[in-house]
Amino acid sequence: MRLTEIRVAGFGGQGVILAAIVIGKAASIYESGYATMTQNFGPEARGGACSAQLVLSGDPVLYPYVTSPDILVVMSQEAYVKFASEVRPNGMLIIEQDLVRIGDIPAGTRVYSCPATRIAEELGKKMVLNVVMVGFFAAVSGTVKPEALRQAVLDSVPPAFKDLNAKAFDAGYKYGVENPDALPQHASSNDMVEVEI
Amino acid sequence: MRLTEIRVAGFGGQGVILAAIVIGKAASIYESGYATMTQNFGPEARGGACSAQLVLSGDPVLYPYVTSPDILVVMSQEAYVKFASEVRPNGMLIIEQDLVRIGDIPAGTRVYSCPATRIAEELGKKMVLNVVMVGFFAAVSGTVKPEALRQAVLDSVPPAFKDLNAKAFDAGYKYGVENPDALPQHASSNDMVEVEI
Repeated sequence: MRLTEIRVAGFGGQGVILAAIVIGKAASIYESGYATMTQNFGPEARGGACSAQLVLSGDPVLYPYVTSPDILVVMSQEAYVKFASEVRPNGMLIIEQDLVRIGDIPAGTRVYSCPATRIAEELGKKMVLNVVMVGFFAAVSGTVKPEALRQAVLDSVPPAFKDLNAKAFDAGYKYGVENPDALPQHASSNDMVEVEI
Repeated sequence: MRLTEIRVAGFGGQGVILAAIVIGKAASIYESGYATMTQNFGPEARGGACSAQLVLSGDPVLYPYVTSPDILVVMSQEAYVKFASEVRPNGMLIIEQDLVRIGDIPAGTRVYSCPATRIAEELGKKMVLNVVMVGFFAAVSGTVKPEALRQAVLDSVPPAFKDLNAKAFDAGYKYGVENPDALPQHASSNDMVEVEI
């Protein structure tokens, strides 16, 4: 497993931490790698943005802080504004389509977009949007095996919610498989609302 | 706020991570300190023990790993066996009374014990034992203000569960206020079952 830094960010209540835990578990427990999740509280946590950082690696993780993520999974505009500039050159940005409008992003950033909230609402529970995002991540990120992620989801939710979360994962994964291409770069400036950072 | 290292440990499904998140939030958001939570996944996470590490500080946390916790909050025997030896000299051990039997512990370790599972069951929901433990922690640890912890609990649970969790916190806190003394040291060898480590 290649060293991969990931940040998952959104607002409180979206299940940001659970999404990060699932990715960490999948990488380690089911793929025999190592992972560390870090969550910072402090002035930056006093706003509405909520963020968890992950380092996945084939070896024990000595430095768990994420400084320039390879992948940013982002589920709110505030978190996007705060963290988008950190993504490393040629990194990957995975956004919730209806909650994030991208502005100027560094050339070479690959942007993948999923209407996770709408998909979750179709399943009857908006709160599973985080797991829809994990399913989408499984399809497009190429970092952790989809089966490992799916298993980690099932292991991380209460028994009564396994079915719902399996459906959420599968729906996000399906959307990613059917929409495997990054958004065209010009889309970011032509088709979407510019955001002042 | 003095630099304080805390480990919260138990088995999966007990809400170990939520308990740690609540303590981190309370220290930072409501007490203007800084906190970092770290969770490691890897071979050590492949067993049943689940653990989260917290560093609370008045300044930004530069090194988020916990090596010898000032306080170990432990909710399962497996986690106790794994982590008890790490507690720093004269540190504090906070245990779930019915799930943990202490064996030899370093002289000077103060042990506080709460029947959180029983209290949670009396409230009708065994799953809130983690919040009962947080309430007990609020009463005995002296690290984070009880009001800050209570507020962090309320901010960290879904609206439908606020009442239940407030009751769980209050019940754990009350138990701690009424049982404020550490167990007598001899109790560890005379009155409790020895555990092979």
